[in-house]
Amino acid sequence: MTFLDSIDQPTLLIDEDIARQNIRRMMDRALKNRVAFRPHFKTHQSLVVGEWLRQAGVERITVSSVEMAEYFAQHGWHDMTIAFPLNIRQTERLRKLTEQTRLGVLVENPEGVDCLSALSDCKVDVWVKVDVGNLRTGLDWKDTRGISDLCEHIQKNHELQLNGLLTHSGHTYKAPDVEAVCAIFREGIDRLCTLRDNLAKQGFSGLKISVGDTPGCSLCEDWSGADEVRPGNFIFYDAQQFTAGVCRFEDIAAAVACPVVAKHEGRHEVILYGGAIHLSKDHQLINGEKSFGLPCFNEGDRWGRPIEGAVVRGLSQEHGVVSVPGKAFDRIMIGDLLFIIPAHSCLTVQVLRKYHTLDGMEISTLNQ
Amino acid sequence: MTFLDSIDQPTLLIDEDIARQNIRRMMDRALKNRVAFRPHFKTHQSLVVGEWLRQAGVERITVSSVEMAEYFAQHGWHDMTIAFPLNIRQTERLRKLTEQTRLGVLVENPEGVDCLSALSDCKVDVWVKVDVGNLRTGLDWKDTRGISDLCEHIQKNHELQLNGLLTHSGHTYKAPDVEAVCAIFREGIDRLCTLRDNLAKQGFSGLKISVGDTPGCSLCEDWSGADEVRPGNFIFYDAQQFTAGVCRFEDIAAAVACPVVAKHEGRHEVILYGGAIHLSKDHQLINGEKSFGLPCFNEGDRWGRPIEGAVVRGLSQEHGVVSVPGKAFDRIMIGDLLFIIPAHSCLTVQVLRKYHTLDGMEISTLNQ
Repeated sequence: MTFLDSIDQPTLLIDEDIARQNIRRMMDRALKNRVAFRPHFKTHQSLVVGEWLRQAGVERITVSSVEMAEYFAQHGWHDMTIAFPLNIRQTERLRKLTEQTRLGVLVENPEGVDCLSALSDCKVDVWVKVDVGNLRTGLDWKDTRGISDLCEHIQKNHELQLNGLLTHSGHTYKAPDVEAVCAIFREGIDRLCTLRDNLAKQGFSGLKISVGDTPGCSLCEDWSGADEVRPGNFIFYDAQQFTAGVCRFEDIAAAVACPVVAKHEGRHEVILYGGAIHLSKDHQLINGEKSFGLPCFNEGDRWGRPIEGAVVRGLSQEHGVVSVPGKAFDRIMIGDLLFIIPAHSCLTVQVLRKYHTLDGMEISTLNQ
Repeated sequence: MTFLDSIDQPTLLIDEDIARQNIRRMMDRALKNRVAFRPHFKTHQSLVVGEWLRQAGVERITVSSVEMAEYFAQHGWHDMTIAFPLNIRQTERLRKLTEQTRLGVLVENPEGVDCLSALSDCKVDVWVKVDVGNLRTGLDWKDTRGISDLCEHIQKNHELQLNGLLTHSGHTYKAPDVEAVCAIFREGIDRLCTLRDNLAKQGFSGLKISVGDTPGCSLCEDWSGADEVRPGNFIFYDAQQFTAGVCRFEDIAAAVACPVVAKHEGRHEVILYGGAIHLSKDHQLINGEKSFGLPCFNEGDRWGRPIEGAVVRGLSQEHGVVSVPGKAFDRIMIGDLLFIIPAHSCLTVQVLRKYHTLDGMEISTLNQ
């Protein structure tokens, strides 16, 4: 019995070879651009995959929560940035973390700085979070006064190391094409560079610039000005990244194997055991149609190419409804596995909490 | 320090009194209508909340997966229906379950029946899943031939008990108003009754009818014809049910407490520690605007009324972006807790995997 034969419920599969290739490729791009590589661990959330990154030379990482920082700090990672606005309700946990790891935090308001200042003898690298157009978090890049005031506030406390300016150009995820992604990526770096130069004139010297979103880091060749990148999704990619042209189909390292439980001939629809609690409710467009992932047949011991015209048109808690046009529908039998490339692999990892390599090795995550 | 003061990350709170009221009210409705009550456990997924139901007199339950059935069977529940199409890859696990519990399963194709037949000495209650208009799973209610063929197929095997016809009118969730919900609920029961009467003429006697969706069971007074109902969401309700008019605001028993980490004066937006991995990506409309839940201030030791005009306009993995118009914005301070009534409480329970009562008791679920 093969590993695929043994699968009886929705199971996230990772192609280790592809994931390792993705790591090497991004690492090479960072080296070529002479930029520090601090990959985001929020996508894979796993110690095992963390080791794949360590073997490729990664020592500094990014995490998205204090909880995730604690998990990796307890397991041998000693240099991390929490890429989320400082939460003043968690300062005591931050203090404890600094005993285990070199810690970078993001601030965007005086309340955050004050709470760090209240922790005596606690060395922290502080990044000022800047919003270069994503309209989520960070001080608006145009608010030069607010940014320099905050830098001053940080430098007043000698335990705090003002590291530099950090942004996440998350709006590249919504960019219509490759050119638009590159334009947003460059614009973000340029805006931070201008800010840095102005701050240098005010006496804030040596500030670094940290950027990093998977679309920008995957597609853009000109990284000049950046000191550090922090992509995360690139390790597995997903259907959103593929349909946006950020990666090739053969770069996708993740798919959820789902048992077929029913077929509806009249509607040309297949019902999968695989719903919102397995795939998450993120979606993308396939030829203008909303789809919760990209359906594929298997090919040998893994998934093959996408089924032409097929979409995951609906998800409920446990069910996936897959519309399969043409003759492909007839190939599908009850009890088969279909493979769904997740729309957004980060959230799929989060909901399923564990995954398997193609040879059946189970990989647990922070949440398992 | 109160329990709320101790919260430092997104935390799902359950108001036990309200949940118990919701249980009693639904139980009373079932009693009044002389219909068996087999509540769905996929919303709360918890042994503790299961006991609240047991204390109210519940003995028969519905679950949505074999995994969930195994969990509750191991913990004292001995009569359950798995309301998901039989997955022929899990027949061995089904067989083991029948050693622990009286088990109901749903079939909609001969493959499912055949796989049950292959399990010798395995007594199972079999429901024929019928689609009365939801277009997800089940044999089309108009396919009378297909339905009677399947009944015949089931009765050929003497170990299998043909229980009756089961449906889920999930399309009530999308109904525009209360009248439409009731019309769909009645239509579903009526369609099954017609089918049952026809099947009786063909010699399939004593078939039962099982229905049950929270909107229909909450709003409709005429349950005649149904033998069993299986609502689940009613125990906590959520923002979708409230905005659809299915429940009153004071019937909602679940909210996620989220720390405020940033304020953006210019955009009148607040950033919460509370994202897709805490709330799930389900959403509803508030005055025509898409919102990932319903933002509320606190009031004493719990959440209060919704903040007028406020919406959760965006969620990323860890962040929630809340738009707060008017003076309410000025009341919010960094470090405060905001409470988000989840758009869909079932998925929020699933992503957070545990919750707390208002006095701080931790309640674990199947997935923790």
